[in-house]
Amino acid sequence: MTHEIVVIPGDGIGQEVTPAAVEVLEATDVDLEFVEAEAGDAVQEATGEALPQETYDLAAEAEATLFGAVGETAADVILPLRDAVDSFVNVRPAKAYPGVDAVRPETDMVFLRENTEGVYAGHEDRLTDDVSTLTRVVTESASRELAEFACEYVAGDDHDGVTIAHKANVMRETDGLFRDTVVDVADDNGVETDEVLMDAFATRVCLDPTQFDVVVCPNLAGDVLSDLAAGLVGGLGLLPSANIGHERALFEPVHGSAPDIAGEGISNPAATIISAAMLLEYLGYDDQAAAIHTAVEETLEDGPRTPDLGGDAATEDVTEAVIDRL
Amino acid sequence: MTHEIVVIPGDGIGQEVTPAAVEVLEATDVDLEFVEAEAGDAVQEATGEALPQETYDLAAEAEATLFGAVGETAADVILPLRDAVDSFVNVRPAKAYPGVDAVRPETDMVFLRENTEGVYAGHEDRLTDDVSTLTRVVTESASRELAEFACEYVAGDDHDGVTIAHKANVMRETDGLFRDTVVDVADDNGVETDEVLMDAFATRVCLDPTQFDVVVCPNLAGDVLSDLAAGLVGGLGLLPSANIGHERALFEPVHGSAPDIAGEGISNPAATIISAAMLLEYLGYDDQAAAIHTAVEETLEDGPRTPDLGGDAATEDVTEAVIDRL
Ligand SMILES: CC(C)[C@H](C(=O)O)[C@@H](O)C(=O)O
Ligand SMILES: CC(C)[C@H](C(=O)O)[C@@H](O)C(=O)O
Repeated sequence: MTHEIVVIPGDGIGQEVTPAAVEVLEATDVDLEFVEAEAGDAVQEATGEALPQETYDLAAEAEATLFGAVGETAADVILPLRDAVDSFVNVRPAKAYPGVDAVRPETDMVFLRENTEGVYAGHEDRLTDDVSTLTRVVTESASRELAEFACEYVAGDDHDGVTIAHKANVMRETDGLFRDTVVDVADDNGVETDEVLMDAFATRVCLDPTQFDVVVCPNLAGDVLSDLAAGLVGGLGLLPSANIGHERALFEPVHGSAPDIAGEGISNPAATIISAAMLLEYLGYDDQAAAIHTAVEETLEDGPRTPDLGGDAATEDVTEAVIDRL
Repeated sequence: MTHEIVVIPGDGIGQEVTPAAVEVLEATDVDLEFVEAEAGDAVQEATGEALPQETYDLAAEAEATLFGAVGETAADVILPLRDAVDSFVNVRPAKAYPGVDAVRPETDMVFLRENTEGVYAGHEDRLTDDVSTLTRVVTESASRELAEFACEYVAGDDHDGVTIAHKANVMRETDGLFRDTVVDVADDNGVETDEVLMDAFATRVCLDPTQFDVVVCPNLAGDVLSDLAAGLVGGLGLLPSANIGHERALFEPVHGSAPDIAGEGISNPAATIISAAMLLEYLGYDDQAAAIHTAVEETLEDGPRTPDLGGDAATEDVTEAVIDRL
């Protein structure tokens, strides 16, 4: 069976790391067909639209989409695309790798970030000259769906349960509903939970990241806390992510388009290649995904490495090294 | 002139670290009169109210209040107390100290956190069984007042300007208003600004905290990002804070009531003693404040140290050592 994969390289280093990940996917024996689509600053400049309807439609119909990075228009592109694939959870593993300089080399956790609501629901108003408001939305149904995913997520593997990170001491009704719903669903599924305020999480994860394994959180908390974990493992260059929907999904590195180094061919393709491995897992090709994970890990440990990791290799050298190790 | 200082020890280690800080204040030549007041879990249990009206009124009338820590009722106590002193900014220095094990020993920054609104304005509703909402409020006036404070704050000392941490790419109207107002006020005052998305801040501060000096942020961003910085300097035991109002102010360590070690007399009084030094600064006693800062720094470097910092000294030993060094 051929799987159709939409590929959206985007801007800046997205144009380098996305083709690199596609090369790695092509080097596996999985039958994939790639359809390239445009989005980002460059398209916006050319056409006035950062996310062409055609790209949205392709992502909304394909089994899976691989996304690179876009520049200034990031929010205008990635938020509608998450919507296009009907994504309810953003899976963000944050793991330090041997050979990569990390503030906290013992970091190994995964964030399951709510992907549809919270402040991202985005009802804003300018009530008067002085007063602006944003209506943050938390629903029982979205919290439940995330929690059910979390329970499935921890079921297979060797996890002790889930940690809920929230701010229900201040956002009592909304984060209270989130927390209570996740606890209920977890109880029903025999999954253990503990909870931590998102501010306390920020302190504690720096002091000892091994306290945390699977972290379930509202949308903005997941955004900030996963980026914090990225800092602990040595930068965004290594973090992949999966936006999982009901019938399709979108995979993207957590990093941006890095305009400062774009075009030089020295960007680190690791996060996008690992995102591609998550894509294969999603399609059911666990062995091929595992092979990519191992090949990336070996390459991070033994080189070649791009300049962000202290090496002087090109994107292409790293990509080839990963493929050679498959 | 005698200054009346309201002292609210609260729960847990608040009962140890607050008297310690009062002892240090008494060892200076500043003429202070202390009035003790109650708040927290214990009072709640005894009277049904975590924050007695009398305590609120005392804080609302005194020149300055020194607050320790409270337990489960933290939000019910500290948020109204910030309101009682009419506080518009929460000043949170995050600085690593020689002799204290820190993930990032080069950390030295201060957060100026908006202290009245954002999600803390707290209009929440349960619209249906499924849907809950919270109305986040951002006003031009509160943003302006914070920005004016920030400009005064950087004026005296050797600062390069301020960094605005926000999430205006998603919260366009509300954080957009916050950001634009701070930029406008800073421009008018000849203060340089740069800006960073709060998620990117979380990554970047781990990778290199020296990038940041004075960070101006909305309420929740300030809560989370300052706690993150606390993690980088080695825990909350060291972070002081000042809630500055128009005519009065409230000083508190950033840490909580630490029920696990409460009553053992081994809690670290440093954050509360430094908060007391900020109180003296606020009253205009810069020399006495500086003497306390120096004495705490010397004590952190040369000991005695409490167990949280790897020592085996008691709260009282540390307090005496600080007083001896004044
Ligand atoms: C670009 C932005 C809208 C996005 C988000 O906030 O989700 C980004 O920070 C991310 O984490 O993917
Ligand atoms: C206790 C809580 C309401 C409070 C806050 O969120 O401001 C605390 O986390 C703090 O930072 O002082």
